Formats: sequence, structure tokens, C-alpha cells
Amino acid sequence: MKQYSTLYKQELLENVIPFWMKHSKDEKHGGFFTCLDQFGNVFDTDKFIWLQGRETWMFSMLYDKVEQKQEWLDMAVHGADFLKKHGRDAEGNFYFSLNQQGQPLVQPYNIFSDCFAAMGFGALYKVNPKDEYADIARTTFQNILNRRENPKGKYSKAYPGTRDLRNFSLPMILSNLSLEMEHLLDKSLIESLSQEIIQEVMGVFFHPESGLILENVYQDGSFADCFEGRVINPGHIIEAMWFIMDLAVRKGDQALVKRTIEIALNALEYGWDKEFGGLFYFKDINGFPPQQLEWDQKLWWPHVEALVCMAKAYAATGDERCQKWFDKLHDYTWNSFRDEQYGEWFGYLNRRNEVLLPLKGGKWKGCFHVPRGLYQVYKTLENVEVNQPELVKL
Amino acid sequence: MKQYSTLYKQELLENVIPFWMKHSKDEKHGGFFTCLDQFGNVFDTDKFIWLQGRETWMFSMLYDKVEQKQEWLDMAVHGADFLKKHGRDAEGNFYFSLNQQGQPLVQPYNIFSDCFAAMGFGALYKVNPKDEYADIARTTFQNILNRRENPKGKYSKAYPGTRDLRNFSLPMILSNLSLEMEHLLDKSLIESLSQEIIQEVMGVFFHPESGLILENVYQDGSFADCFEGRVINPGHIIEAMWFIMDLAVRKGDQALVKRTIEIALNALEYGWDKEFGGLFYFKDINGFPPQQLEWDQKLWWPHVEALVCMAKAYAATGDERCQKWFDKLHDYTWNSFRDEQYGEWFGYLNRRNEVLLPLKGGKWKGCFHVPRGLYQVYKTLENVEVNQPELVKL
Repeated sequence: MKQYSTLYKQELLENVIPFWMKHSKDEKHGGFFTCLDQFGNVFDTDKFIWLQGRETWMFSMLYDKVEQKQEWLDMAVHGADFLKKHGRDAEGNFYFSLNQQGQPLVQPYNIFSDCFAAMGFGALYKVNPKDEYADIARTTFQNILNRRENPKGKYSKAYPGTRDLRNFSLPMILSNLSLEMEHLLDKSLIESLSQEIIQEVMGVFFHPESGLILENVYQDGSFADCFEGRVINPGHIIEAMWFIMDLAVRKGDQALVKRTIEIALNALEYGWDKEFGGLFYFKDINGFPPQQLEWDQKLWWPHVEALVCMAKAYAATGDERCQKWFDKLHDYTWNSFRDEQYGEWFGYLNRRNEVLLPLKGGKWKGCFHVPRGLYQVYKTLENVEVNQPELVKL
Repeated sequence: MKQYSTLYKQELLENVIPFWMKHSKDEKHGGFFTCLDQFGNVFDTDKFIWLQGRETWMFSMLYDKVEQKQEWLDMAVHGADFLKKHGRDAEGNFYFSLNQQGQPLVQPYNIFSDCFAAMGFGALYKVNPKDEYADIARTTFQNILNRRENPKGKYSKAYPGTRDLRNFSLPMILSNLSLEMEHLLDKSLIESLSQEIIQEVMGVFFHPESGLILENVYQDGSFADCFEGRVINPGHIIEAMWFIMDLAVRKGDQALVKRTIEIALNALEYGWDKEFGGLFYFKDINGFPPQQLEWDQKLWWPHVEALVCMAKAYAATGDERCQKWFDKLHDYTWNSFRDEQYGEWFGYLNRRNEVLLPLKGGKWKGCFHVPRGLYQVYKTLENVEVNQPELVKL
């Protein structure tokens, strides 16, 4: 497993990061282009806040954890300045998207814009401790907590009272964000919040009959027999499991580490396409046709997140099943998504693993899952004990 | 071409309509089930207003135009009663969806719920002239016109002023709805409205460089170089062209008939998958990756609408190109979508024309496009002059 570390580091630093350095910076209006075709050409100039925040985070993190390269810090500042100047409405909520010049296009209906902006400013503050970065990160985080019970606010189309569902995405992102914001928040807030989130993800959204995590449940955690209640997103479960595993390792909670690994393995088994390989994007837990027409497609991020999850699972327990899955995921992912010819990775394949959209970035894919995943695997496996996995068992 | 008429009539009356008669009626709570699996079993009980209105329309229309079967009238009344009782909020806007019992699930953010409800009540009034049906149809139609400039109202997520786009869907549906509502509305309103709609569809949304119709344009009709502005929906264009052709035939406007046919033929050429056959769901007019992950899928409705459009085009002009396209579409559509074994038609195929979702109805597919299309083709070709297409030329 240790040998993978070098490969992932090399891919991160020699292929993926240079691609974004070269193609994504908007020198004219600030911020980042993310709609990049196979060759890196910009095919659309809109700026999506999720991806502005994520790229800001990425370059801050690399500067913090990999090497103090001035060009990385400059990229992070470049993203943060654009977000600071154009990203928020008068109440401090982050818009969903802006045009190239920074004028708002889509209202702040989506709380994940705020999550990824907070993540970006939080990480940048670590390496460039300007008060305003800390202020924006803290205020935004507080705003997320305030909006937590009704994140879509007035943009919610659900009629209240008939079928009030709880959605898994926000606690899942908060499990990661609370660790990312650790240096900026009260220790007691982090403690109580992470405890609450673990309980929510592993208690409320966990579905004992299948051993999986549901995307939407009734308020009391019970199963909702409707499209939203039946949908399973294997990649989402697996990503959440490494977030929770990080919290568990930090707490020294071995039992929780093991639970996250079992659920991740369940999701891999359940989500894997036995015919063509790769993880399905969505499935219906009762085997009915899912609502999502893209259900059978293979997306980059579930596979990258699964690699991270299995690397961490192996490092924490030496569990052979995790090693086997890592090998299988590695072969599939590198063969299917990586673009040998023009750099970076494709994002969207059809069920047969043929490229469906020949883009390197778009509305949802930016400088995030691929480089974060490469970094996580490289760091996780860097010091793993070869042939002595028992040594790193918790 | 005339021979097709019998086949389409038979498919309508012996396969498709019996399927919905048998499986879609909710005897317990009223309204219709539309989430039906391959065999006709209900897999989800939510009631989507689009499909409640459309099925009400379908059975009313069949009773009006095909045969005065009591069971068809009963189905229409069954749908209308449910819509009347549960469909609207206090302001008379139709919700998007209800649960099985009729309690609102999703708010009235979508004006097409109102369009299809008005269409259903309007058609039912023709065959069952109760004042309340006319009232609901008229009031709802007026409400649609009032909401026309800002159909999503408070649920719109677009930030006003940055990139105000006009969307093609509402004028397109109104071109059909205004004819469907003819018996209930002022003649002068219909005249001015249809004139306005023709101008909007054929003027504002028409894109001269490609000969196609755009889904979204700037307020002045100019091209918007963004995802929404670049997207082409070939099936949508072709469906709109038969709506406008109906208006043109009614006005005796031969030049307009010919323009609709040229645009429909452009859309067929442009949308056809040269490798696997069938019409793509979405394309980007500049050849960039579209936003819609389902872009390369083959959906039932564009093909059914294309059959209707080519049948009408042939009947109106005898144009051989339309006959050739009809033959080609017929072979492809009947071979790919029709389920010989369990009745009705599949709705969603992947690019290779394999069944992607083995359902007969769902959130968007109900008792509508297939039976309406079969009816339209059967009626259109019933009296077409064999071997003498010149005779029916305008």
C-alpha cells in the first residue's frame, strides 16, 4: 500500500495541480474558471461559489501541508478576494453562482455554498492570518448553524407538515467542516457539534436493515417510503464514512472507526456495478426505478472518495478487505477517469465507463475531489507500515 | 401513410389505454397512480399534478373524440374530482405534488401544473358541462396569464437583473393550451394570444444561424452564451412545431405551416444520434458539454412528438421528407420503446437504446404522450389521401 503514496503524490503535484494552476485563474475579473474542456480551455465563464470556495481551500491546504509555494498561496488569496468582494448578499449568505464579473446570478438558496466558502477562508487564515479571513470564516460558519434547521429558507419548495424529511448532506458536510474550522472555533463548540453529528449520521440516518446510510429520513429517523427516502447514494455514504472516521480517530474511538469501515464496505458492495465495474451514482433501496436519470453513470468523486476511505480504513486497522477494495478501486479509477493525453481526470462516464462529458471541470467538478483525494491517499499511506498492518491497528 | 392509422388506433385502444384503465386508478383516495413498474404495479403512491391533469385530459378527450365510453368519462371525472378537492392552494395555484391522500407535498412553484390542470378541466367540461369545471379551467387559465411574466414567483432562484432570460416552455405550452381552451375563452383573447405566441416562438426564440429554437434567450431574443442559453432540446422544438402548425392550419397560413416543418426537420437532423439512432435529449448548440447528465438518453416523448409532427406535416403538405422521417421514426420508436410483453411503452432508454428505467410511468411519464401521440397519428393519417399527397397540399 505504501507504494501508492509516491504515485498519488506525483499525480497530484505533476499532473492535477499544474492543470488548475495553468487553466483556472481568471486574471481579468478574479476568481476561478471551472468550466474547462478536455484540453483545459474555458468553455463557460460563470463562477460557482461551491467551486470558488473549494479551490481556495485546496491551494491554502497545499501551502499548509505540502509545501510553502508562493504561487499556491497567491491562488488561494486570488480566490478568497473574489469571494470576499462578490460572494455574499447583504445578510452574509453566499450566492450560488456569479457571472464572470462577479455579479450574482443565482440566489443563496444552497447552504453548501456557505460551507465551502467557510472552508476556504478557514484554510487560508491558517497560512495567511489576516483577521478578515477569520471573520468571514467564523461568521459564515455561525450563519450555517443558524440556518441549519431550514437551510433552503424561503427557497424551499416542500410544503411544511405533510412529509418533513431530514437530509443527510448537511450533517455529513459539517462532520468535515467542523474539523476544518477547528483552529477558529471554541473547543467546546467543536466537541458538542461533532458529538451531535456523529449521533445524527450513525444513528438517525443509519438504516440497520441494509447497513447503509439513507439520504432522507423522517424527523425521528424512520424510513420514508418515497423517492427521496428510498434513494441511496453510495459515494455519499463512503465519503461521509471517512469524515466520521477522522472524527473517530481523533477521539480514539476504535469501535466507531470499525463501524464506519463496515458501513463503507457495505456501500461499496451495494453500489458496485457487477457487470461493468465502478460505483453506481444512485440506487433505490427497494430496487425500484430511481428518480435520477443519471443513476447508472460513473462519476469521478465517489471513486476518489472511496480510495480515500479505503486508504484510511487500511491505515487505521490493517483490514485486508480494505486493501483489496483499494486495489480494485485504484485499477478501475485510474484506468477509467484519468486522461493520459491532456492531463487531469474526466468526471462523467456512462455505465460502460465511456466518457460521457469530455470536460475536466464544470458546474460541479472543480479543483477539489481529485486533488484532495490524491493528497489524502498520499499522506495516509506515506507512513503506513508495510507488511505490518497490525502495528497500526487501533 | 394511411395504413399507419389503423395500427396507431389499435395500439391506443387495445394496448395503451387499457393499461392505464387497469393500473392507474386509485379507488381508495381518488386521483391516479402514475408510478407504475414494467408490469403495471404501483411502486410509489405520490400524485404529481402535471400527470393528474394530463390523464384527466386524456380520458375526456377520448370520450369526446373517439367514443362515448362511460368508463372513460368516469376516469376523467375521477381525476378532476381529486384535483378539485386537493389540487390548489388558497390563491388557486396548483401544487406540484400531493401524497396519496391528497395532502400537499410540493408548493405551487411550477406553472405547468396549472397548465395541465386547466387543460384537464377544460376538456372535461366539453363532455360533462358542469359549471364548476368551466370555472376552474377559466380561473386557472387567467391565473397562468397573470403569472406569465414571473411564473416561478417567490420560488425563483434567479437573481434579478444580472441575466434575465426568457424561457421557451410557457409560450410553447400556451400555443397548445389556447386551442384546447378555445370553447371556454373569448374569441378575441384566443386570437390575440395565439398571434402573440406565434410571434414569440417563431420570432423571439428562433435562432436563424442554426434554424433551431432556443430554450432560453435574453429579453430581446438575442443569444445568451451560458448553459441555459446554449441548451437545445430537440424533442421540445419538434413538439412546439406541431402546436404552431395546428395554429397555422387553423389560420390557413401556408407560409407558417412550411416554416414549422423546416424547423422540425432541422431539429430532427440536428438531434438524431447518427451512431445508435434516436433523438438525443439535450445538446449544446456550441458543441460544449451540456449541463444535463442525461443528455444522450433517448426518452419516449420526443419520439412520440416527432411522429405526430411528421404525420401532421405530411398531411398538410405531402412533403416526402416528412414521410421518410415518419417511417424512420416509426421503426425506431416502436422497436425501442414498446414493451411487447407487458404492454404500454418504456420511457427511458440509454444511448444504446437499452431500457434504463423499467417503468411505464413515474414522476414525469403518465397517461399522456404515448396515447396522445397514438391518437394524433391515427386521426391525422385516417383521411390522408393515399398516393395523392398533392391533393392535401395547402
